[in-house]
Amino acid sequence: MPSTTETTATTPATGAAESAGPAVHVLLPWAGLDVRHGPWPANVRVHIWDGHTPVDELPAETRESAELWVMPYAVPGAERLLPELTSVRAVQSLSAGVEKLLPLMPETACLYNGRGLHDAGTAEHALGLILAAQRELPRWAEDQRAGRWEPHFTRSLAGSRVAVVGYGSIGQALERRLLACEAEVVRVARRARPEEDVHPVTRLRELLPEVDIAVLVLPETPATAGLFGKDELAALPDGALVVNVGRGVTLQTGPLLEEVRAGRLRAALDVTDPEPLPGDHPLRQQSGVLITPHVAGGSGLFRPRAERLIVDQVRRYASGEPLANACPRA
Amino acid sequence: MPSTTETTATTPATGAAESAGPAVHVLLPWAGLDVRHGPWPANVRVHIWDGHTPVDELPAETRESAELWVMPYAVPGAERLLPELTSVRAVQSLSAGVEKLLPLMPETACLYNGRGLHDAGTAEHALGLILAAQRELPRWAEDQRAGRWEPHFTRSLAGSRVAVVGYGSIGQALERRLLACEAEVVRVARRARPEEDVHPVTRLRELLPEVDIAVLVLPETPATAGLFGKDELAALPDGALVVNVGRGVTLQTGPLLEEVRAGRLRAALDVTDPEPLPGDHPLRQQSGVLITPHVAGGSGLFRPRAERLIVDQVRRYASGEPLANACPRA
Repeated sequence: MPSTTETTATTPATGAAESAGPAVHVLLPWAGLDVRHGPWPANVRVHIWDGHTPVDELPAETRESAELWVMPYAVPGAERLLPELTSVRAVQSLSAGVEKLLPLMPETACLYNGRGLHDAGTAEHALGLILAAQRELPRWAEDQRAGRWEPHFTRSLAGSRVAVVGYGSIGQALERRLLACEAEVVRVARRARPEEDVHPVTRLRELLPEVDIAVLVLPETPATAGLFGKDELAALPDGALVVNVGRGVTLQTGPLLEEVRAGRLRAALDVTDPEPLPGDHPLRQQSGVLITPHVAGGSGLFRPRAERLIVDQVRRYASGEPLANACPRA
Repeated sequence: MPSTTETTATTPATGAAESAGPAVHVLLPWAGLDVRHGPWPANVRVHIWDGHTPVDELPAETRESAELWVMPYAVPGAERLLPELTSVRAVQSLSAGVEKLLPLMPETACLYNGRGLHDAGTAEHALGLILAAQRELPRWAEDQRAGRWEPHFTRSLAGSRVAVVGYGSIGQALERRLLACEAEVVRVARRARPEEDVHPVTRLRELLPEVDIAVLVLPETPATAGLFGKDELAALPDGALVVNVGRGVTLQTGPLLEEVRAGRLRAALDVTDPEPLPGDHPLRQQSGVLITPHVAGGSGLFRPRAERLIVDQVRRYASGEPLANACPRA
């Protein structure tokens, strides 16, 4: 898709005068949002950049006028446009984790994240990984192709105790699903919140011996890098399952590989370190390990929810209201 | 395990006299329940048959005295013992579906099923199959082994509409899980229950065009055999997912194979027709089809829940109370 400037639909006669202030230029990753979600406010001028078109093909007028930029989702290197946007005041990421963008932000602009867009998708992917591991779905799929029909009893999720490590909006969405599946949940976060029965990560080694499943839903920060390592893994009981749907670096790959090689632990990972996981990485062929390529947030749920957020944020910006999902500088 | 007769532990002095009536002989599939769940009532005499020992090796005294028989679970042909049990008054199956046992029951005995034992296990397996299919877990597992890292967006469960066809205790357990996953549920059963918003199966063809996923949780009866066939499959929209965790014969294999071969529908099956599915059956190699070998009820949840039911039923029988889970003759 080439970079384009949409002609803003004229708003209906009534109300147009009061909402139309000075022109506000916004740069969006997708065209057609006005078609699906109703016309833009009269003062909004929409420009489009999909993240793949070379930056120097984007008209200078776009680069110099855009005040609100909604970044293309999951396009590596899209942040290269940031220094070119000389008028930018608000940058909307569609990711939940924006740890790598914060240091790139100019002092004159605020960053907003995609909090909530990925909750349902990531939580259900985590649940799918857990159920697949507990009920041995990859093994049955192999048997299916190999012509075998050899049932045996498996583990279950019901009756299990699950540590949710990272108790934000995704962790809470996962908890609701786990409770409906008759599992017990142990809440863990970086900081204790006693009023919500949330334990601090510093107590992990005391808590882990009593859980069957540990799910990491942590962002990448200096404090979380390598947080789940040799000692945490060793604290888990034999046969426990380790799940990571947060960021790859929060779980130490070397110690995990040792535990799964020994057959002592199992793992289901949507994120890895390194990522992408090299084609010849030993985790790939290890039994008891299930890997998906960072797709937890990438379901059909994303696009409609992301469009809704974009439309709401543009309308807020155009009318001078505060935007949602602000990410304060550290 | 050979057939044995357990020496019943003597109950403590207090209360023994009042609870001890005439001796009651019960035939169980597992020994040691008194060790795990406390002593049997004083009048209970426990015999054990695991379903594999030849019938004629079972002592004549056991065959002639057993009044309550708890059938071995998932042992094909265990019902061959039934005609030998000349004093039997109560037969406890540990299965949810007992359609094939009812016609074998002598007039002097009642049949009891394993209602509830399999709810959580079967519901979570169904949920696992749905999530695996929507989030493409078998494909990612193949990519894992093949060294690929090629993420793409997938379908989701959240935001989907799911028809639960068969709205008994398993269907209700599945519904609770689906609602927590932000799916919408359409309840269907053989008979309409308007007060519970349950539609009759006769309305299936009107309902199916609006659903993304149809889950069959039906027992095998003359009325359900072949219930979901060519017309029901044709009524589903393109890309819909058909799940069967009830009985294989309720879903017509031929028409299903045509639809998945055409790439129009997808399927996730824990039960098949025929079952076991032959090693060279074309469903096995078909893309868009996930098959598990009738393991939905077979998780670690089963044994403790089954033991609890057995212990409760034996105590009820020994004290003359009505047993739970009676299955009336049709």
